[in-house]
Amino acid sequence: MIERNGIVELLKKVNNLSLSSGHFVPFICQGLQVGIVTEQVCKVLLRYPHVFNVTPAYVTFSPILEGFHQCSQALNDVLLELRSNLEFSSLKGWRDECYEISSSYGSKPFFQIERSGAPIFGIRKYGIQINGYVNHSQQGLCLWFQRRSLTKPTYPGQIDNFVGGGLTEGRGVLETAIKEGEEEAGLEPHLCKNILPTGTISYLHQSDRGIHPLTEFIFDLELPETWLPANKDGEVDEWILCPVNKIFDVLFSKDLKLTSSPVIVDFLVRHGILNIENEPDLPIIAELLHTPLHLLNSVPS
Amino acid sequence: MIERNGIVELLKKVNNLSLSSGHFVPFICQGLQVGIVTEQVCKVLLRYPHVFNVTPAYVTFSPILEGFHQCSQALNDVLLELRSNLEFSSLKGWRDECYEISSSYGSKPFFQIERSGAPIFGIRKYGIQINGYVNHSQQGLCLWFQRRSLTKPTYPGQIDNFVGGGLTEGRGVLETAIKEGEEEAGLEPHLCKNILPTGTISYLHQSDRGIHPLTEFIFDLELPETWLPANKDGEVDEWILCPVNKIFDVLFSKDLKLTSSPVIVDFLVRHGILNIENEPDLPIIAELLHTPLHLLNSVPS
Repeated sequence: MIERNGIVELLKKVNNLSLSSGHFVPFICQGLQVGIVTEQVCKVLLRYPHVFNVTPAYVTFSPILEGFHQCSQALNDVLLELRSNLEFSSLKGWRDECYEISSSYGSKPFFQIERSGAPIFGIRKYGIQINGYVNHSQQGLCLWFQRRSLTKPTYPGQIDNFVGGGLTEGRGVLETAIKEGEEEAGLEPHLCKNILPTGTISYLHQSDRGIHPLTEFIFDLELPETWLPANKDGEVDEWILCPVNKIFDVLFSKDLKLTSSPVIVDFLVRHGILNIENEPDLPIIAELLHTPLHLLNSVPS
Repeated sequence: MIERNGIVELLKKVNNLSLSSGHFVPFICQGLQVGIVTEQVCKVLLRYPHVFNVTPAYVTFSPILEGFHQCSQALNDVLLELRSNLEFSSLKGWRDECYEISSSYGSKPFFQIERSGAPIFGIRKYGIQINGYVNHSQQGLCLWFQRRSLTKPTYPGQIDNFVGGGLTEGRGVLETAIKEGEEEAGLEPHLCKNILPTGTISYLHQSDRGIHPLTEFIFDLELPETWLPANKDGEVDEWILCPVNKIFDVLFSKDLKLTSSPVIVDFLVRHGILNIENEPDLPIIAELLHTPLHLLNSVPS
């Protein structure tokens, strides 16, 4: 059923940028690497010497900028100008929502950046994903998927995980999961009592919008077979309950949002559906699900 | 209860060698990296030019050696001589048991190496670990641990995971887990029916015996609270059932075998006991549990 190398190749498409690739330089803040900048982006940043110090080896904020507010404001001004110039496709999706950038999840932020500008600087992002599953009396173990609304700005009409969303400032991880579950799938609070945090997955992805070092906090949630999801925010067009014996049709479907696939694979590995007896590449798969993004936050050599 | 950074520091002691460190060269076989050799080991290998081609950038077998049998035999002869010279402490534990070395788990082997010689060449090793746990009516979730026999050649008297063992040629992964479970803990076949493969963990560890790039296949096994383990091979001195609310006493105990700790941490993460609400370093922890050893098998740059 599983095509040899199929899953490894899929996860390598997600992890399509190597941490050790030489085609970009680190974005450094207070001595720590907070992002990745391509040569093409460096050329643009050279136009703003009052904001960025661009060298062949790294990019930093200009030393004339001090502290959270000065850096955040100057960065936002640059992004607003680039947005009006239409130079970066990612800025077309301007959100008026900021990420706070710090040395590790939850610590004091160095600066904040408009969400749609983060891929330009290859800044680490965090999100949540809920695997909604059913131990079905007839069909056995099944997983819920959604089809994204055709009106969504990113990946319209594609198949996606049950519930997912980005973490933004001022909201906790479990809190975000429960809020997204309620908005996307109509999850009632009593159903969320059994929600189980099962760790994180991480990958480094480059798309036409930029560079995405993403860490997802993963939750498993067993649901009654009588319960049906009900979208509330207009972002879901269809719900699909897939038995695990048909899961590879979803995983290798052209309709699946590429970056949704590691969430499915992680679920299959943890639940023993993918194992070394049926998938000889299991060790590589487990490693590709946990790309060491913490190395991006190390003191650069 | 959890000391801030305590778990990250513990996992960094396990992963005490960086894949990008410059203090060793790759051991290459048929164009693929199969191990890591320190400068000190290179100096010794230079004495055997009919067996090894040692350069400042890499080590390979000499081109005069061809195929599985010639390489394996020549390597074994060198190891036997080094053993009699008492040059490497790891060879004191000569096992007369071989690892087969290939490009990935389960593929056609390039050569075989006596098990105790593997750390000298920093060769990838594979093992199994079973987390034996009980949903106890009084104590809640509990984990079984063993205290290793005082007569074991490695880590005598230390606390270790419930069941573990190395994979050797000619035996499957699940088969090894069941065999070790029976020998170490007296696990009856009917108890093993519920054994659940949950993925792999991997780390790169350097000890006084050499370099250990290790991948462990992890299994969870729920056990009845009335069942007691019974060692059969004389390698276990004591059994300990630890409730999860006391698990950090075990994890940070000086009695715990250091390389057993990632197995415990992985269990705690997957079961939601360690989560982002009580452990801000969860993303780093998940990455440190899955060191990308597959990069050791990439075509070297």
